Amino acid sequence: MMDKLFTVLVLIGVPISIIGSIFHWPAVIMFIVYCLTIVALASFIGKATESLAIVMGPRIGGLLNATFGNAVELIISIFALKAGLVSIVLASLTGSVLGNLLLVAGLSFFVGGLKFKRQSFDINEARHNAGLLIFAVIVAFVIPEVFTRTMNDRETMILSIGISITLIVLYLAALLFKFVTHRGVYQSEHHADLTKQDEEPEWGKGKALLVLTAATVAVAYVSEHLVDTFDVVGKTFGWSELFIGIIIVAIVGNAAEHASAVIMAYKNKMDVAVEIAVGSTLQVAMFVLPLLVLLSLLFTASMPLIFTWPELISMVTAVLLMIMLTNDGDSNWFDGLVLLAAYVIMGLGFYFV
Amino acid sequence: MMDKLFTVLVLIGVPISIIGSIFHWPAVIMFIVYCLTIVALASFIGKATESLAIVMGPRIGGLLNATFGNAVELIISIFALKAGLVSIVLASLTGSVLGNLLLVAGLSFFVGGLKFKRQSFDINEARHNAGLLIFAVIVAFVIPEVFTRTMNDRETMILSIGISITLIVLYLAALLFKFVTHRGVYQSEHHADLTKQDEEPEWGKGKALLVLTAATVAVAYVSEHLVDTFDVVGKTFGWSELFIGIIIVAIVGNAAEHASAVIMAYKNKMDVAVEIAVGSTLQVAMFVLPLLVLLSLLFTASMPLIFTWPELISMVTAVLLMIMLTNDGDSNWFDGLVLLAAYVIMGLGFYFV
Amino acid sequence: MMDKLFTVLVLIGVPISIIGSIFHWPAVIMFIVYCLTIVALASFIGKATESLAIVMGPRIGGLLNATFGNAVELIISIFALKAGLVSIVLASLTGSVLGNLLLVAGLSFFVGGLKFKRQSFDINEARHNAGLLIFAVIVAFVIPEVFTRTMNDRETMILSIGISITLIVLYLAALLFKFVTHRGVYQSEHHADLTKQDEEPEWGKGKALLVLTAATVAVAYVSEHLVDTFDVVGKTFGWSELFIGIIIVAIVGNAAEHASAVIMAYKNKMDVAVEIAVGSTLQVAMFVLPLLVLLSLLFTASMPLIFTWPELISMVTAVLLMIMLTNDGDSNWFDGLVLLAAYVIMGLGFYFV
Repeated sequence: MMDKLFTVLVLIGVPISIIGSIFHWPAVIMFIVYCLTIVALASFIGKATESLAIVMGPRIGGLLNATFGNAVELIISIFALKAGLVSIVLASLTGSVLGNLLLVAGLSFFVGGLKFKRQSFDINEARHNAGLLIFAVIVAFVIPEVFTRTMNDRETMILSIGISITLIVLYLAALLFKFVTHRGVYQSEHHADLTKQDEEPEWGKGKALLVLTAATVAVAYVSEHLVDTFDVVGKTFGWSELFIGIIIVAIVGNAAEHASAVIMAYKNKMDVAVEIAVGSTLQVAMFVLPLLVLLSLLFTASMPLIFTWPELISMVTAVLLMIMLTNDGDSNWFDGLVLLAAYVIMGLGFYFV
Repeated sequence: MMDKLFTVLVLIGVPISIIGSIFHWPAVIMFIVYCLTIVALASFIGKATESLAIVMGPRIGGLLNATFGNAVELIISIFALKAGLVSIVLASLTGSVLGNLLLVAGLSFFVGGLKFKRQSFDINEARHNAGLLIFAVIVAFVIPEVFTRTMNDRETMILSIGISITLIVLYLAALLFKFVTHRGVYQSEHHADLTKQDEEPEWGKGKALLVLTAATVAVAYVSEHLVDTFDVVGKTFGWSELFIGIIIVAIVGNAAEHASAVIMAYKNKMDVAVEIAVGSTLQVAMFVLPLLVLLSLLFTASMPLIFTWPELISMVTAVLLMIMLTNDGDSNWFDGLVLLAAYVIMGLGFYFV
Repeated sequence: MMDKLFTVLVLIGVPISIIGSIFHWPAVIMFIVYCLTIVALASFIGKATESLAIVMGPRIGGLLNATFGNAVELIISIFALKAGLVSIVLASLTGSVLGNLLLVAGLSFFVGGLKFKRQSFDINEARHNAGLLIFAVIVAFVIPEVFTRTMNDRETMILSIGISITLIVLYLAALLFKFVTHRGVYQSEHHADLTKQDEEPEWGKGKALLVLTAATVAVAYVSEHLVDTFDVVGKTFGWSELFIGIIIVAIVGNAAEHASAVIMAYKNKMDVAVEIAVGSTLQVAMFVLPLLVLLSLLFTASMPLIFTWPELISMVTAVLLMIMLTNDGDSNWFDGLVLLAAYVIMGLGFYFV
């Protein structure tokens, strides 16, 4: 049913986006059209990546998921960077981290918990991810803010580049660890069984590649014009750049992924739901963000790895909360509610900041 | 024996408090009288609540404990708010959090550990509480301080109100989770047995209600006059408002509860001792404090949810320390000493700040 | 083989250090000579302490290790304090904490992990240490920075002295706990076996005492002259005091110890490797540093317990990362790489700060 909805949205959304962008239709209306269209396109990119991943086998498949999983966000961010909107890009990545850790995991735990009294997931995976979350968000994001206070712009960018390269190298090493050297080493039998289901690809290799290419091109086109509407939309609704980036862009870029995590939780496949929420967070923090820092060197406005304090405190506390709630490998509706409550508090904060 | 002492203290303290307040006896002497009287009255409120809780059954009993457990603090704080002493109220709630987490738990672990080599408590309960401590103290208290730096007073109060409502809703949800939907689900058999002892109420329903009402009225009377002595006492001893709130008011408001936690630890009933220390912390942070923020709207000086940095850092580090020491479900004298040492360091700090 | 190298280094390094210091040879060359000589001498102090510890039995042996384990650092720091280089001393202790937690543990996990797929260590010990790390680094180091912002110098020193005494008392209590009241209580059998090997002392009591005395005197002599070269070396290479302290002095003071931790990891004796890394961190934070604060009262420039924010954030995040990676009692090459990546990021930061 959701598939049909997304298909209709794409068939209507893409033409309207093209016509509207050419004839300069009102920005606020087009903003809504662009957002819905991207949400629908993202679901196609997700399904195509998944099908390809199954066809290609676990190793290359894992790599594909790890690279294309946040392709939509990467594309929107590149066009925002090109337009010089550095602080919106950083904010949207903050929003992606908060959205995945608090909103997606929170909804998954809550909705799953309404149906099942207790749901369990792989505790070794949760601990492995906890270490990476602390590394990426607490070490790699907080250090530059604190250290660069007395640095000039050049030193700040050099430090940002150094940290970005370290993050990407560690991200690649994490893939090597997970898919090659320690594949299955830490996986308990019970959970290994669960994740082996559903290995039938929806589309063949050719169709998947075609959809992936077409949807990616369409997302790129729509994103470029979406970015141009931020200015008018912000002024119309009284939203700050921080709020647009953290709440709006982050939700649009991740909506399809969010929906599938919640559906997995409802089917009691918590390992998949947690993998989507936390895996996606790590991908944004350790791959998409540092890649954007490096790509920004090609544009006029380079992007240092410096978040605002509200962004940093939100991400750090979200990480600590998530780690504390998941390190027993067990979730329930209340765990979900705690995460959602944290998202509400931060959302309120960013609205007024 | 302690019961007799408290009875004598009430029988002497209440009349002296009334006479002294009418004839304006010296503030420093009356400050000591008021403090001792409140400590004794609090023990009666505690016992009456406990008896009622047993009579009413576990669900309503749990709710009763969760509401009246910190009644004394709530009453003192309301009178302090009425007198416009906003920063003393916030400081006394900080003191209550620190006192419960470090002093009460520390003394319990230390005293219990002198008699028993290792003492154990319910690890699931400890983890559940750990998540709530991080949510309340780290997310809900740190976020407003960081976010409101650039906000005006009105926006600061709106954010404070929003967070307070979120905290109370989550506190009620936590009670629903603990007493209704997941009652006993996470409790190991061993610990379930332990907590089922001592189910005989000390007083009948009638007597308990009578004592509760009388003691509450008396606490209210004494608290109103206690608050008036802070100014003179602070100047006489050279204590700052922060120190009076954090160390003095917090200890007075919690002394009776503190004593019973330590006694429970000495009897090797660690689940009860930990429940008093951590449960009381959560009640203050998620119910008393946000309720006071909302009640403050009725008074001339409204109270935002903004702590000072020394208060925040103390609470955050106390929470992290407590979580780290309890997440193995095991305590000993050294764990207690670590918590007490942290309390000493913070006490020293607040004395000079 | 490494023993021979160190013997040669001492036989050549000590005479050159003496001659060079008398004839005022170029500072940069002498800086290198002094550093290498101290590294070699430290290995002799380490071996002598170890031999004595075995001869004297576990209790006094433990005490010996706990006191002389960081003797070299203590000596260098005393001479730096005497020369008024307060911020270099604090920086070198920060560097020692970071070096032990990230570089030593990181290299141990990484090198050990290249040979063994999974390596395990005592989880109870790891948790016990985690509590102390949070106490020492997060409570005792962060509190004074935040609280003293509004204090004058006298109040700052009083608070620093109070915290230092608390730290030393708790350190002694930790030794009492570990070697007397709870010796073996928390140790799993498997790990108790592992640590009982290699109980043959390399040197007899007499030779060990002689070597210890001679090497300590030599380290003292060389350290005194090493400190004098910092100024010229810093200017020549463009290194800040912070960088010299955190990276250079810390590595020199701990190099021998670092090497033996990595060797132990390669032999799959992870308990020993972790004990060296974390035990040494705790010794510096809870004994060497507070002792230096107290000793500084004898010199003209007294040293408060106030680190810079970059130092504090680095230590706090290093502690959180280490705790998260070790609280499962299991390590692998990737855990090591995460710690090393954090060290690289902080090293980059301190270079530019």
